[in-house]
Formats: sequence, structure tokens, C-alpha cells
Amino acid sequence: MVSHPPSPVLVNPRAERVKAVRALARRSVRERTGLFLAEGPQSVREAVRCQPGLVRDVYVTADGQARHPEIVETARAAGLFVHECSDEVLAAMCDTDAPQGLLAVCRVVTTSLEDLLAEAPRLLLVLTNVRDPGNAGTVLRGADAAGADAIIVSDNSVDVFSPKVIRSTAGSVFHLPVVTGIPVPEILTALEATGITTLAADGAGAMLVGDAPLAGPHAWIMGNEAWGLEPAVRDACDHVVRLPIYGRAESLNLAMAATLCLYESARVQRA
Amino acid sequence: MVSHPPSPVLVNPRAERVKAVRALARRSVRERTGLFLAEGPQSVREAVRCQPGLVRDVYVTADGQARHPEIVETARAAGLFVHECSDEVLAAMCDTDAPQGLLAVCRVVTTSLEDLLAEAPRLLLVLTNVRDPGNAGTVLRGADAAGADAIIVSDNSVDVFSPKVIRSTAGSVFHLPVVTGIPVPEILTALEATGITTLAADGAGAMLVGDAPLAGPHAWIMGNEAWGLEPAVRDACDHVVRLPIYGRAESLNLAMAATLCLYESARVQRA
Repeated sequence: MVSHPPSPVLVNPRAERVKAVRALARRSVRERTGLFLAEGPQSVREAVRCQPGLVRDVYVTADGQARHPEIVETARAAGLFVHECSDEVLAAMCDTDAPQGLLAVCRVVTTSLEDLLAEAPRLLLVLTNVRDPGNAGTVLRGADAAGADAIIVSDNSVDVFSPKVIRSTAGSVFHLPVVTGIPVPEILTALEATGITTLAADGAGAMLVGDAPLAGPHAWIMGNEAWGLEPAVRDACDHVVRLPIYGRAESLNLAMAATLCLYESARVQRA
Repeated sequence: MVSHPPSPVLVNPRAERVKAVRALARRSVRERTGLFLAEGPQSVREAVRCQPGLVRDVYVTADGQARHPEIVETARAAGLFVHECSDEVLAAMCDTDAPQGLLAVCRVVTTSLEDLLAEAPRLLLVLTNVRDPGNAGTVLRGADAAGADAIIVSDNSVDVFSPKVIRSTAGSVFHLPVVTGIPVPEILTALEATGITTLAADGAGAMLVGDAPLAGPHAWIMGNEAWGLEPAVRDACDHVVRLPIYGRAESLNLAMAATLCLYESARVQRA
């Protein structure tokens, strides 16, 4: 890719550069290149503001520039390459239909479990076997709001850097460390060895969240959105904890359950 | 429609009956007929179990019957018409690609605001200008889990009986009363006249949820998922309340915010 600004306005939606960006919607291409797409003003703003070191290129249309001058300004001030492009070029690069004139290509950076645990985290979320991108992204946003120290995503889960997950995080992927690709047993063993209490979130849990030991360092372990936690994983956790259901709903969805658990933790830890 | 069981297995996806069911995916047809679609085992189970009086017809494939015999049994025990149909017929009737072999056609029944308020509710959720079906349905599910007495949906909102909302409620639409189609000012006036405190949920609120008066009867007033509450609505409420954001997320999404507010209310009211 060209790296000497100012570059001319990109107008050819069939250019190799455009195809290369668009290809980042595919997991195999993300894994090979170590790059991912951040689409739309919210994601691009958080990328250039919080993690400019991860941003490789910013693409903006005339409309995007007019609507969000402060994002473009922040990107330029951080020394980033801001490429102007036509609406057609941006549309051809994006996974979504409505990118609102802004796109960033960013480097994937994950944290190792070892490095994370060396930081003495007090509140963690572990996603196991999560498959729905929207759910995963919303959970990440909720964990960010609740002030979790990091998210750990097990090896059999959705790719956190897929465009749909990134959109659903609303920028939160640039706010907190993400650990990916580790088998669940290995995660639990490492947490235990570090003195972090593991709490399996399960609607059939014997312990109500209000009775759970939330004052010390702990991790919430969440299962698949449809079938929940694997029994072996649930049994390996220190406690199996349920949220109260006051009405007649059978359960809460994954994002709501994770956010309620983490907010309860934050309430207790910050009291 | 035929109403004398046992009916033969429906195998023609181009039959008038099939087209009439499928047409219920359209708002205009729902409004004209007063009927809506409940798709999939979770919705159909809650319909036949909790609101059999609203169920007009149940459609099931051989596979749906084999996988969920208890739902079909409950429907038959309630005297409902259960029609067997081919996979092609069910697919032609449904809005979704994966109805999992079960569909119910139900009558729309909403509650009047007057009747609802006569029941002295203690915890209500008011959705104003909510447009995203998935969000609206998830909110309804969260309100059900939190034990809210009812949901009030303002006139400028998504149709609660659209297939996508109903799917996202995971059956909760059959659990709690829904009031629809009323302008927001009228809702607020009626709540005030009944002594129900109105709490505008707004990220810029001066009052933290932990300081809000949640012990008495109150209603949470939620705005649009993208642009929040209209200023005039916000100003007309008794308090403007925000959830704490402990991390760097700009906000929570509508479903998470509503569920967190309602759970905090439930915690206080049931203490």
C-alpha cells in the first residue's frame, strides 16, 4: 500500500488496494495479514483516539470528513495515513452497507494470558464457545462499561476481529485487552493458579449472584448463547452462580446476563 | 381457514392458507387481521402454555413433532388446532429461515393504559421511539426476567408483533401485558396522575441509578437506540437517571441499559 501522504483521492472501486481491504472481512485473510476492519465513526474514533498505534490506514469520504472532522483531525494529529476516497470505494471496502463515510484498517493485537494475569486483574470475563458475532460484540461493550479488566475468549469461539463483532463492540475492542484462542481448561487452570475465583454463570446454579464472593478477584465464565456452559467446564469452576429471574422468562440472553453479572461485581468491588 | 380436526397434512406451499399465514409478516396484514406469527419452539411453547386463548392455529412438521412432542401435546390438551404440514409448507409460512418445525398464528391482544394502571403496577418500562426489532424484543425479554408488570410502547415505535420482535422476546410477549400505540405525552400524564414516578434513563442524567427512588411505584422511560430520549420527554420526567460507566465505553445499548435499570429496581423493591 502507498504510504506517502498526501495520496490522491481513491476513486476506483476495483483497485487492488480496495480489494485487499475488502478481503479483511474473511477470517483467513485476517489471520494471514494480522489486520482487521473498524467501520463507522464510533469504531474509527475510538481506534484513533485510544489505540492510534494499531491503526494502519484511515479511509474517509467527503461526507465522512464533513460529518466527523474531529475524527479525521485526531487521526492526522496522531500521524496516521488518512486516505480520501469516493463513496463507491468506501462501500466496496466495507462489510456493512452503511459505513457512514469512515473506515480504519487496524492491526490485530491480543494479550497473552500470562501477561494479563501478571497485571493482577480483579474482574474478568471468559467467553466459551460463543458463536454469535452480535452477542460477542455486545458482551465486550458491556464488559467495558462495567469496568472489567479484560475479556478472555476461548479457542472454540467466534473471531473477535470479524467486522460484525467489531461493529457490535461500538469501539470497546479498543478499550480493553482481549485474550483469544486458548482452550477452556487451560484458562481455568491459569486463573486458579493466580488465585482468581471462577464463577460459572448458569441459570441452574445453586448460588444467587447476590450471595457470590464478588469482593475479591474473580472471573465470570459464560457459555454458548443457545446451550450454555459445557458440564465439565461448569463443574471445574469454583461456584455455579445464577441471576434471579423475577418474572416468567426462561432465561436472559448472553449479553444481558454477562452485563448484569459484571455490573453486580463492579457494584460490590467499588463499594 | 379449516377448523375441523383432524385435518390432512398440508403439503402445498402455494395454497391460499399458506399465503395467508405468510402475509402476517407484513404490518398492514397484521393490523387488518389482528393476527401475528409466533415462530419456533420457544415462542410456540410459551404461547400454548401461557396464552392458549390467543392461539388460533399451530403448525408443526414431522420433525418439529418428533423434537418437541410436549409442545404439541400441550397444544392439543388446550383444545387448539394443530395442523401437520410439510417442511416446505412451514418454510413458506415463516419469516425466518430456521423455524425448527413449529409455528403458531396468534391473536394480537394489547392492554389499555387505563386497565393497566387500574392494577396498581409497581414497575413499568416505557419504550419511546424504539425502532430496532431485535432491541425491542430483547428489552421485552429483559423486562420479563426482571419481573416488570408491563411494557408500554409509544406510538412512534417498532411494531411489537413483527416476527423479528416476537423471535427476540423468546416467548416473553406471552408473559406480560403490552400497551401499544399511545403518544409519549399521554403516557407520562397518565403515569403522573396515578402516582407513578417517571425515571428518564439517559447517559447524561444528573442522578445515578443507585440514588434513584426505586422503592415505590415507578416507570423507566427509554429513548431511541441511537439518539436517546427526546429532550422534551426527558424534561417532563420526574428524574433523569444514568447508569454508572466504570470503563471507557461511551454508553450501553438499549437492551442492556433497560435490563440493568429494571434489575436494580427489582433488587430494591424486593429487598
